[in-house]
Amino acid sequence: MANALTIVIVEQDKERALGIVDSLHETGDHKIHVLAEESGLSRSVAQLNPDVVLIDVTNPSRDTIEQLTTASSPMDRPVAFFVDRSDAQMTKTAIEAGVSAYVVDGLQMDRIKPVLDAAIARFQLFHRMRTELETTKRALEERKLIDRAKGMLMKVRGISEDEAYALLRKSAMDQGKKVADVAEALVTAAELLS
Amino acid sequence: MANALTIVIVEQDKERALGIVDSLHETGDHKIHVLAEESGLSRSVAQLNPDVVLIDVTNPSRDTIEQLTTASSPMDRPVAFFVDRSDAQMTKTAIEAGVSAYVVDGLQMDRIKPVLDAAIARFQLFHRMRTELETTKRALEERKLIDRAKGMLMKVRGISEDEAYALLRKSAMDQGKKVADVAEALVTAAELLS
Repeated sequence: MANALTIVIVEQDKERALGIVDSLHETGDHKIHVLAEESGLSRSVAQLNPDVVLIDVTNPSRDTIEQLTTASSPMDRPVAFFVDRSDAQMTKTAIEAGVSAYVVDGLQMDRIKPVLDAAIARFQLFHRMRTELETTKRALEERKLIDRAKGMLMKVRGISEDEAYALLRKSAMDQGKKVADVAEALVTAAELLS
Repeated sequence: MANALTIVIVEQDKERALGIVDSLHETGDHKIHVLAEESGLSRSVAQLNPDVVLIDVTNPSRDTIEQLTTASSPMDRPVAFFVDRSDAQMTKTAIEAGVSAYVVDGLQMDRIKPVLDAAIARFQLFHRMRTELETTKRALEERKLIDRAKGMLMKVRGISEDEAYALLRKSAMDQGKKVADVAEALVTAAELLS
């Protein structure tokens, strides 16, 4: 699997692009797409849905880095950025945007594949953590909503906690929804009506 | 701040170590410690408590990488690893262990500082996310504990949810503890007694 990747290369310089493609072909039977145009990059990358995006920029400005970062969606897939020069602030901006590898003055042909491997491993780690964070946040939010809804029902109807929860669950089942969704609807309605 | 770092360099080769130190001194007024011995590395790093650890290994084995990774505590501080060769699996192992930068065959003197900048930025991003995940998990756990404790009190004492919470809070205040801690003690005690 790691030996046959779909790779998008974003590179303006045709000769460098050819060099990168050749060096990558030596490491496996990859499907490689080279994009030179910055316009429509975001859509092209989304359509090709590659395993990894390699972006090479000589003499980058902060604007270029920001635009290319946004267009490659580094939160959704591994993105490896090669720049010939950078400063600590540009490095920080790219990494905080989610770029999985940020290599300064290091585009040597035999080093590209290891950088892509590192970018993929780092993206997977980051993505797993981000998913766990989202799941945990949602669980906490849902619990808070259900607690609020239960409290409202207990007060308005004069019923116990268990009865309030049973009522929420029955309503959810009747509507084919999640308990948390019913609870949210109830809390929202109560806020509108109060 | 970024211009005056405390840096620990782990390097067996004296000449390379000198080269690294020289190149770093050109980028700022850093406090640099060079460690050659692998024995006691973990304690030395902990004592020096540097802003970043730079580890350079030629010809690494998976064991060496694992040992050096563990000794440098990459979950607690930025660690930048330079190896002269690697494979996808070794790369993955190091990154999953928390190494902030993993550079294959890329120890060029003028590229060291940008790699350290990237390692520090990546560590900060990762650390922030890990802290947020831990905080959210704890909030969820505490909420579950408090709910269970409230439920127990409501049942045993025949009181309302509000009264149960008030009771927990009073007990917490009396003992100078958090409500979640009192709830946990109550749940644990109930399990032992049942």
